[in-house]
Amino acid sequence: MLAAARAAFAERGFDGASIRAIATAAGVDPALVHHYFGSKDQLFLAAIEAPANPADFLPEVLAGGRDELGGNVVRMLLRVWDGPMQPAALALVRSAVGNEWTGKLLREFLVSQVLRRVVATLDATPAEREARGALVASQLIGLVVARYVLRVEPLASAAPEELVAAIGPTVQRYLTGEVELPRA
Amino acid sequence: MLAAARAAFAERGFDGASIRAIATAAGVDPALVHHYFGSKDQLFLAAIEAPANPADFLPEVLAGGRDELGGNVVRMLLRVWDGPMQPAALALVRSAVGNEWTGKLLREFLVSQVLRRVVATLDATPAEREARGALVASQLIGLVVARYVLRVEPLASAAPEELVAAIGPTVQRYLTGEVELPRA
Repeated sequence: MLAAARAAFAERGFDGASIRAIATAAGVDPALVHHYFGSKDQLFLAAIEAPANPADFLPEVLAGGRDELGGNVVRMLLRVWDGPMQPAALALVRSAVGNEWTGKLLREFLVSQVLRRVVATLDATPAEREARGALVASQLIGLVVARYVLRVEPLASAAPEELVAAIGPTVQRYLTGEVELPRA
Repeated sequence: MLAAARAAFAERGFDGASIRAIATAAGVDPALVHHYFGSKDQLFLAAIEAPANPADFLPEVLAGGRDELGGNVVRMLLRVWDGPMQPAALALVRSAVGNEWTGKLLREFLVSQVLRRVVATLDATPAEREARGALVASQLIGLVVARYVLRVEPLASAAPEELVAAIGPTVQRYLTGEVELPRA
């Protein structure tokens, strides 16, 4: 089931893959997939062996309201990455950059499980939300790669709150500021 | 000579590696290294098989002056990456994220060949310049990974000037704006 799910999510994306098609590919009844995994979100997280479910962190990120969203997103990202999940998260990023298939799965994870939830709270059209989410992704991915993978100083050794102060305003601008939004 | 150079730059960093030590490790005279490669910059670029010398692009990036530096850095990054060097640049990034040794070399490349040259024009202390350069790196690395590696939309399909408009102001703020700078 998980192998069929990985293939379906990588080939058709999170939105395009259906539990029914995954069950058919795995030769089982869709009810069995629902029984084991619950929702498509949970099946997806199991399929990519996600070290955590971003939905669990969402209430805290949103708690400060719209004007603190940028800082709170950066703060939560650093808390997860500076914690015990770092080795698993690093392995996921290394694999996603080196392998096209895993890369597609990480993109689907970022878009469907992280960014969409953060931007869902914004008063904006779907296209605007997608563009703002992607801009946020560009800053957060770069922070992760610079701090944890390449270890560029002073980012690698800086205290989390220093990075929240420096980078939070960028994420806030991408989420709620005046930005000329790119279109696909 | 190139193998000795790669080992030295990865182990001791760009600043810590000397042409003399590299020549000794390779069993040749330092004059021979100078003869073949000229400067330490050029030896380094040859050692990492850099698809281009960032110094060649610098005059154009700086031509617009201090207030257009952010947009011009993003514009040049996209011109290089959207051009014929993209496959070589992608290979370098994939390898750097997957391999600690190559990662160190890419970090040294970014810091010594790209960022240092851009921030050298700023009126700031060395520590400030290093911090501003690292913040710029966090945004540019993320843009590259989101657009070219993970292909997050709409960043992957957007016209370069749309990305200059959206992301240039972030880079400008990191270079010359009011930022609480992180310290190592």
